[in-house]
Amino acid sequence: MSQLKLTYFNFGGRAEPARLALCLGGIAFEDSRFAFKDFAEVRKSTPFGQVPTLHVDGVLVTQSDAITRYAGKLSGLYPTDAFQALLCDEVLSAVEDLSIKLGASFGLTGDAMKDARTAFVNGPLTTYLTWLQSRLQAQGGQYFADQRLTVADLKVFCYVRGLLSGNLDHVPTDVVEKVAPLLLAHMQRVAAVPAIAQYYAKAAA
Amino acid sequence: MSQLKLTYFNFGGRAEPARLALCLGGIAFEDSRFAFKDFAEVRKSTPFGQVPTLHVDGVLVTQSDAITRYAGKLSGLYPTDAFQALLCDEVLSAVEDLSIKLGASFGLTGDAMKDARTAFVNGPLTTYLTWLQSRLQAQGGQYFADQRLTVADLKVFCYVRGLLSGNLDHVPTDVVEKVAPLLLAHMQRVAAVPAIAQYYAKAAA
Repeated sequence: MSQLKLTYFNFGGRAEPARLALCLGGIAFEDSRFAFKDFAEVRKSTPFGQVPTLHVDGVLVTQSDAITRYAGKLSGLYPTDAFQALLCDEVLSAVEDLSIKLGASFGLTGDAMKDARTAFVNGPLTTYLTWLQSRLQAQGGQYFADQRLTVADLKVFCYVRGLLSGNLDHVPTDVVEKVAPLLLAHMQRVAAVPAIAQYYAKAAA
Repeated sequence: MSQLKLTYFNFGGRAEPARLALCLGGIAFEDSRFAFKDFAEVRKSTPFGQVPTLHVDGVLVTQSDAITRYAGKLSGLYPTDAFQALLCDEVLSAVEDLSIKLGASFGLTGDAMKDARTAFVNGPLTTYLTWLQSRLQAQGGQYFADQRLTVADLKVFCYVRGLLSGNLDHVPTDVVEKVAPLLLAHMQRVAAVPAIAQYYAKAAA
């Protein structure tokens, strides 16, 4: 097995789907976390000033969805069928798009942030959550691809969990329930997967 | 074989790596192109108002890199080894990041566009081109992954080709040669692949 070191903030964010995949697959990795205040230092050693990064036998690799997909392959949580993999990848990219759109509001303050976040909630967030729900339904309502848990489910799970956390100012915590209730049920179902429940119980301990 | 219909503007852009991959692999597809003036109408039938879209046996799928990766799998231009696929995916995502950063300047005019484009050239473009060149060197200097042509090469090829086209105001056409000359050589090498040379000869005819 390759030596893996996954570096990211000490919260969920863009590294969490890969962390969860590796945990579910029982793949050993160094879960290298740093405090937000240390980001300025950490980013100096990354090519684009971004995290997460993954070291594979010492080779530094960037790009969160690339890392998530790789973790999914190692863990058996990525479809081998090309079309099912396409559906999985589409969901990864769509959620990443949404993260980028939300990201544009970070750093804003006061009314500027409120206006940006409100426009985000009523615009892209509603559009993407509605689409994700319809995609889930089209695949049978349980999983996003391959009729089983894949990294697409983990990516959506982490994103929806973030929306419910209450950490995002001006994003109502009931937006998922109102706009796409099947995604809330999906989130709760994924959270109940024993290895995932255990992961968060351990994190909270 | 599945029935494929790829819908995009009648220029290269985000659909071109998938078009090239399908052509190289001899995979039949409907190359559905529309004029820029018709975009307002076309986007009404897409979930996020974006193109390209791919219909696979009538199922509408979005997200350009997901489509490119799928086309690469059908065409044998995507690594089967997980780590090589990670390197391939990293390049796809990095170039997509760059496209998003450049995209922010579209729609600007006058000095605002000039300032945004100049900042783009001296900032992210230089950073990403330098990184791509070093990645290419680390893989032996010919290809970005798997020691052979993959969709990563096609993605970079299309992007570099766009930079050289002279269609981007305030982006000097010699930026690639100055910042990352190995990428220029890579572009010329990919352009000389017989099926690719034939593709562009046909498009120009």
